[in-house]
Amino acid sequence: MIPAKGYAVHDATSPLVPYSFERRDPGPKDVVVKIAYSGICHSDIHQARNEWGGSIYPMVPGHEIVGYVTAVGSEVTRFKVGDRAGVGVMVDSCRECDNCKAMAEQYCTQGMVPTYNGRDKDGNILQGGYSDTIVVDERWTYTIAANLDLAAVAPLLCAGITTYSPMRHWKAGKGKKVGVVGLGGLGHMALKFAHSFGAHVVQFTTSESKIADAKKLGADEVVVSKDADAVAKHAGSFDLIVDCVSAPHDLNQYLSLLRLDGTLCLVGLPEVPLPVSPFSLITNRRSLAGSMIGGTAETQEMLDYCAEHNIVSEIELISVDRLAEAYERVVKSDVKYRFVIDMATMA
Amino acid sequence: MIPAKGYAVHDATSPLVPYSFERRDPGPKDVVVKIAYSGICHSDIHQARNEWGGSIYPMVPGHEIVGYVTAVGSEVTRFKVGDRAGVGVMVDSCRECDNCKAMAEQYCTQGMVPTYNGRDKDGNILQGGYSDTIVVDERWTYTIAANLDLAAVAPLLCAGITTYSPMRHWKAGKGKKVGVVGLGGLGHMALKFAHSFGAHVVQFTTSESKIADAKKLGADEVVVSKDADAVAKHAGSFDLIVDCVSAPHDLNQYLSLLRLDGTLCLVGLPEVPLPVSPFSLITNRRSLAGSMIGGTAETQEMLDYCAEHNIVSEIELISVDRLAEAYERVVKSDVKYRFVIDMATMA
Repeated sequence: MIPAKGYAVHDATSPLVPYSFERRDPGPKDVVVKIAYSGICHSDIHQARNEWGGSIYPMVPGHEIVGYVTAVGSEVTRFKVGDRAGVGVMVDSCRECDNCKAMAEQYCTQGMVPTYNGRDKDGNILQGGYSDTIVVDERWTYTIAANLDLAAVAPLLCAGITTYSPMRHWKAGKGKKVGVVGLGGLGHMALKFAHSFGAHVVQFTTSESKIADAKKLGADEVVVSKDADAVAKHAGSFDLIVDCVSAPHDLNQYLSLLRLDGTLCLVGLPEVPLPVSPFSLITNRRSLAGSMIGGTAETQEMLDYCAEHNIVSEIELISVDRLAEAYERVVKSDVKYRFVIDMATMA
Repeated sequence: MIPAKGYAVHDATSPLVPYSFERRDPGPKDVVVKIAYSGICHSDIHQARNEWGGSIYPMVPGHEIVGYVTAVGSEVTRFKVGDRAGVGVMVDSCRECDNCKAMAEQYCTQGMVPTYNGRDKDGNILQGGYSDTIVVDERWTYTIAANLDLAAVAPLLCAGITTYSPMRHWKAGKGKKVGVVGLGGLGHMALKFAHSFGAHVVQFTTSESKIADAKKLGADEVVVSKDADAVAKHAGSFDLIVDCVSAPHDLNQYLSLLRLDGTLCLVGLPEVPLPVSPFSLITNRRSLAGSMIGGTAETQEMLDYCAEHNIVSEIELISVDRLAEAYERVVKSDVKYRFVIDMATMA
């Protein structure tokens, strides 16, 4: 076993504290990654605090992981020692179901194996990226081009692929009008991708203070969503709206903005069921959909696209002693736009 | 003006009573149809009783209309006197918006003009099919092949196209697993179409008494939806589920049955918003969609398909003196599977 250290929560109400544990010895297909940076995703907080139920403690959160390869198994072909590498939200799946065969491992019918707050196939508890090292099968490890700022790449492994995948699936691009709801960790990546793909992008935000930022990040228009008249001006006009808000909110307002065969895709994850009006759906044959990260091939495609188009996350780099503060600020949406932990600051 | 008589409601709580009114004189593109049969749609009752709000009285309901052409305008090309003809849920639209140009007039951005409980472009109140005659623009009038039982064709104009259109849009057919929720007026047509298109069809019903009927109508499997275990056996397996239930019910149960990129399409119209779990949607990248009747070209295509494959509705033919009884039985779902009024019984 490989000794590892990181920051863990021991129950739903305690703060993150230093924690020593072990990683498995690398098998022939495994890559050992020394973690340089780890992003803080809102879902880390939901799980640390058991807000979705079923949390496994102790828990080292973190699934936006970047670093450098320190060892590779004998059958690893895509990595060598010293390479940059990334790990995202999942680290394994059944590999045999139709979805896995289609490289949509995130939808594995047996359930994908999460990077943390889950167990590997042998029943061992898996720990995440707020730590110094991780061992992951090559299929779930991604190459990262040298031209990108490594710390700012970390959030691409969750916030990036979570927004890239539905934009590609529903064909955001030239000639399409695309909305982004919420300008946070997910939203600012959705905005960057939609803009990069050539769509006409409208950013919806509750906060007037974010208008200038949204335009800088690529929005063609910004609508303050509390202004019902401003929202209503866009009725029936969107091909796709990607909804990045994880708090309960009114979906029918956004459904009403979709044109014929338009889709409102949820990527934020409100914990409670949201009321949907059937009349909103039958008008214009609208769809309300959801999307969850992306498969391994698409995640690599996304990272390669980002390298080619010089896209990274906007981040606030923090030291480990600011974890508690960062969690509180994420809950208050007070971050532009993603916290990334510099793991070198761990004692 | 052309004198007409029919049955109307004068407010939300009164029964249908005989009513005399006038139809417009036919313009050059109009077809005058002597109504032989008129289906009773659950939405007739919702509107007669103002359950959706905004009802216009007096109201002659009915939008599943079949009969014979008695006169045609000078520019009419598809009909001559004596031809069978059908009229459905709409009788006009703006004709100029993108959706109308795409022959998706039901999604006209200006709002399609309904057959009744609405007004024509001159502001005149329009009246529906529980009457002896109707005057409709040729574009919204459909030809009906001679081989089909005319009374049993009436429900195709709403229940038929409402289920045919989403089955075509989401490509129900060979190699696809398709669910139908509810075995009523809409559901039994959804079942017939899905079976005819070659899909593997699973009928969901709350009523064990309908199992035999469902199999006779083409279901490969029938699941009693109160049996949670029987439902759960189909988890993650459907490409498409067409939900024909107009009462509030649990959508998340059916969402959980969809495979990767599957769609749950609502064609029933519960009056209240229904709670939808975001987790149900992001798993398998599912969509919850809605669909409303079909465009004029697709409605004609559906009628031609029915003629070719000898598909009609299962009906109970009634005389006008049984209207009140029929309404009560529709509300109780006590009809196999659509009431059709024989308008020749009107005094």
